[in-house]
Amino acid sequence: MRAAKYIGGGRIEVGDAEAIEPGAGEVRIRVAYNGICGTDLHIAQGHMDHRVPSPSPIGHEMSGVVEAVGAGVELAVGAPVTVMPLDWCGDCPACAAGHQHICQNLVFVGIDSPGALQELWTVPASLVVPLPEGLALDHAALVEPLAVAVHDVRRSRLAEGETAVVIGGGPIGQLIAIVARATGAHVILAEPDAARRAFAEAQGATVVDPISGDLAALVQERTGGSGADVVFEVAGTRGTALDATSHAKVRGRVVFVAIHPEPVPVDLHRVFWRELEVLGARVYEREDFERAVDLLASGAVPADALITRVVQLDETQEAFDALLSAAAMKILVDVQGARA
Amino acid sequence: MRAAKYIGGGRIEVGDAEAIEPGAGEVRIRVAYNGICGTDLHIAQGHMDHRVPSPSPIGHEMSGVVEAVGAGVELAVGAPVTVMPLDWCGDCPACAAGHQHICQNLVFVGIDSPGALQELWTVPASLVVPLPEGLALDHAALVEPLAVAVHDVRRSRLAEGETAVVIGGGPIGQLIAIVARATGAHVILAEPDAARRAFAEAQGATVVDPISGDLAALVQERTGGSGADVVFEVAGTRGTALDATSHAKVRGRVVFVAIHPEPVPVDLHRVFWRELEVLGARVYEREDFERAVDLLASGAVPADALITRVVQLDETQEAFDALLSAAAMKILVDVQGARA
Ligand SMILES: [Zn+2]
Ligand SMILES: [Zn+2]
Ligand SMILES: [Zn+2]
Ligand SMILES: [Zn+2]
Repeated sequence: MRAAKYIGGGRIEVGDAEAIEPGAGEVRIRVAYNGICGTDLHIAQGHMDHRVPSPSPIGHEMSGVVEAVGAGVELAVGAPVTVMPLDWCGDCPACAAGHQHICQNLVFVGIDSPGALQELWTVPASLVVPLPEGLALDHAALVEPLAVAVHDVRRSRLAEGETAVVIGGGPIGQLIAIVARATGAHVILAEPDAARRAFAEAQGATVVDPISGDLAALVQERTGGSGADVVFEVAGTRGTALDATSHAKVRGRVVFVAIHPEPVPVDLHRVFWRELEVLGARVYEREDFERAVDLLASGAVPADALITRVVQLDETQEAFDALLSAAAMKILVDVQGARA
Repeated sequence: MRAAKYIGGGRIEVGDAEAIEPGAGEVRIRVAYNGICGTDLHIAQGHMDHRVPSPSPIGHEMSGVVEAVGAGVELAVGAPVTVMPLDWCGDCPACAAGHQHICQNLVFVGIDSPGALQELWTVPASLVVPLPEGLALDHAALVEPLAVAVHDVRRSRLAEGETAVVIGGGPIGQLIAIVARATGAHVILAEPDAARRAFAEAQGATVVDPISGDLAALVQERTGGSGADVVFEVAGTRGTALDATSHAKVRGRVVFVAIHPEPVPVDLHRVFWRELEVLGARVYEREDFERAVDLLASGAVPADALITRVVQLDETQEAFDALLSAAAMKILVDVQGARA
């Protein structure tokens, strides 16, 4: 079979690989599609060589069908599935407290261990999430990133009728806006790129260019002077991190979704003055994954519009290059094509 | 009558003043004691002249007895009372949402309007909190700062059997540690001053000098490697603000109690990685005030040990000078003495 392997030093190579026999409790999946995300881009630029094994396939946003099962696995061959790529230890204080998704020894499958950019992918059956028959497999490759957004929104306790500000209209910001809308909230999305603003507007968000427009005034106007119930900081700049707290109402919630590797200034006086809650949110729990499946199956997510482009496995490096040079929403690798 | 008035420019002057007749819905209190806090020190250094009226008495940590009541007030003359010094508008979005204590137009009585450093103080009856007969009036002057600590602990949702880290052993840090202990929590208090460490240790806290000792190792050891359930950052330095998040367990809560007027770097990566909650907490609600009264009346608070010194009203400026130059826990002004 064929696989796109990260070989270290910021390089990806497509070549032949050995399919792994599923052992007891394991499943081998015939991968259909695999989406590429920001973390994959980091890996492919060589920024995560301390963590990522090589040579080894990466990829963790996928869909496929069960191809073979090991002993003790009840999944039917041919069943459509996705994988929740979190493998926890079960022993640490986080696992003991029921927060396995942020296990202190978490293995993120596809980053810390081999991923889905290969025709046949063998994983523990416990990570497999069944898909409904009606959900197209290309759409199903969006389950993982959508589950991130579902988790962010759930952590924020955003409720119907509330107002959410989303700062940043990249793929995760758009998905958060979509989930917030599906929750019945009003969404104000701030994004300097006109095409991304248009995308969010088509999904029912009120949009603003934070450079030429006035996000603060818009939030005040739309909330009758109280401020937003929830703010999602997805842009990940020092400026937006500092600004995020200013838009939240008294006792409002602020979720810093974007990753800030280094400490950045936060307006703790505003946190104090308005008794804000700043909430960390990381990956997802099983219920988030399942809600993401349901949302996609229900048609509430504009999956076709989110998928900017589909490339073949042989073109994986090209897909990475395209994502680095242009603002695509989501590029999928069609792994089935490798067999053609 | 006599009053200690802030006259602007960082100066306090004790002199004669006119007692104000209580109007409808008002109470005139014969003030017994008034404690001096960090905010008063800021005022007395001229840092809050933009906000504080002058010449006008300051002071908001007090006890006294009802001296006269206006029309429609049911309080008995002679009843021991304290005052919850928050006067809200009732109209703003915060008030409408039931968060009157952080009203967007809040008047903090004793800061934004005349305070208790006068023999006879006239306030709205709605701010008056009755005291039980058994509670000494000097102890009762601690109700207000204790209510701050009660509110901080309540916002943190600290529960019996949990572990709280308190960074900073000044008056507020000590009160938080005392309330946390009264809640049934284990307390680890970090403080460089030996006398303050000894004070906290006598109240049942495990103490550590964060300079010569290793707070992080102690927290890990005491929590079996999971980290603290709650961290209170009370020291208010850039270093402690940056460090605070590192001691919290997965899904732990961090309360930034100290006021940071300017944005300071926060480890948002840690907030994300462990799904922490950073909670703002400001002043108190009525139930916090009432719990503070109960805690003091029950003897759970070492009130005599907390009161470093009592001075007469004429010595108010001296008390401020002493607080600026030495690490006292709490200095009370005995306002009754002014009549002698
Ligand atoms: Zn991803
Ligand atoms: Zn674990
Ligand atoms: Zn105070
Ligand atoms: Zn108000």
